[in-house]
Amino acid sequence: MGSDRLFDQQEADLLLEIIVNRRDVRGNRFLNKPLGEEEIDKILMAAVNAPSVGFSQPWEFVLIRDEKIKQQIRDSFDQENAKAAGLFGGEKQKEYNALKLEGICEAPLNIAVFYKEKKETVLGQTSMQEVGLYSVVCAIQNMWLMARALNIGMGWVSIIDPEKVKQIVKAPAGNQLVGYFCLGYTTEFLKQPELEILKWEARKNMKELIFYDNY
Amino acid sequence: MGSDRLFDQQEADLLLEIIVNRRDVRGNRFLNKPLGEEEIDKILMAAVNAPSVGFSQPWEFVLIRDEKIKQQIRDSFDQENAKAAGLFGGEKQKEYNALKLEGICEAPLNIAVFYKEKKETVLGQTSMQEVGLYSVVCAIQNMWLMARALNIGMGWVSIIDPEKVKQIVKAPAGNQLVGYFCLGYTTEFLKQPELEILKWEARKNMKELIFYDNY
Repeated sequence: MGSDRLFDQQEADLLLEIIVNRRDVRGNRFLNKPLGEEEIDKILMAAVNAPSVGFSQPWEFVLIRDEKIKQQIRDSFDQENAKAAGLFGGEKQKEYNALKLEGICEAPLNIAVFYKEKKETVLGQTSMQEVGLYSVVCAIQNMWLMARALNIGMGWVSIIDPEKVKQIVKAPAGNQLVGYFCLGYTTEFLKQPELEILKWEARKNMKELIFYDNY
Repeated sequence: MGSDRLFDQQEADLLLEIIVNRRDVRGNRFLNKPLGEEEIDKILMAAVNAPSVGFSQPWEFVLIRDEKIKQQIRDSFDQENAKAAGLFGGEKQKEYNALKLEGICEAPLNIAVFYKEKKETVLGQTSMQEVGLYSVVCAIQNMWLMARALNIGMGWVSIIDPEKVKQIVKAPAGNQLVGYFCLGYTTEFLKQPELEILKWEARKNMKELIFYDNY
């Protein structure tokens, strides 16, 4: 029953390299070149091999290439982004407005990822209901790493109205949008997160994030 | 500014192999052997290199080795698990009670992972507040893959009262428990998820999870 696959130091280091080089890729960097079916299959294979509470696999994926649907999603982004800009003051608002925060129309492929709640009791989901949603996020992170290893850029668009996205893709009422993503080949992967380069936020000191036994 | 690191086919395939071989490891499989500091550092390095909304890095990690604290967490599991068992009927309840669903005391290291909400407006978190929590889940999935690549088992214990865990580790009121984990070297990694082997749940057909342009 056991797997005899043990990984060696070099393999573990390669994983860390993929993790450290993963980036959130925005619209100004996507190439207008379709993704291969084999690459898309590998990204989805990574997704469905994520951990899920009680092996519930509560995920669904909508692959979007239709330009009209993309434009409708983009309209929702524009509305939400205009509202968001108003929440930042002065210089920060100017900086905010200069950022390109999505690549919905530029990316050849968009993927909307949904959580589909199970009707029956799920093993492991009885005390913390939210772990069903978290399973879907684990699938998303697997996709992101797999995309990066395939030299495909992926970006998370969170400045959208999830209910509008549900309507646009005709999702069942019980489904919940977890994330909306843009994928495509890219001109480059930045060496650091863009918001770090632009000094929007500083990297936190790891020592301040780690506690021993208790706070 | 750009990174010239492109990954090749073999490297991408290795990532998929790590993803597919990752398992939720339970108490009956942990070895009583401490983890090396270097291994723990790599797991935490993987965590803090996860994507986070607006580069907010809203994660904190409590590393628990104290036996008394572990026992208190284990007590919370026992209470929640007794309640959970009552939610399954007949044969399923018998099967449920036969499962070992945690490894809190057996694992040499436990890690409680918290979300620390930022007071200021976070870029990208204005329309979907939950993406802050989701950033922390991305960090968790990175940890899980890194642990597997280091041949270290990791298990998610979700059958606990998150408020009790907060009290036990003296977490600040504003922090939210996202996940509680057991880590340790292990006798083996199963070839498939344990709940799949035991036929608790069947693996879903990928074709039923994927939609094109809309539902």
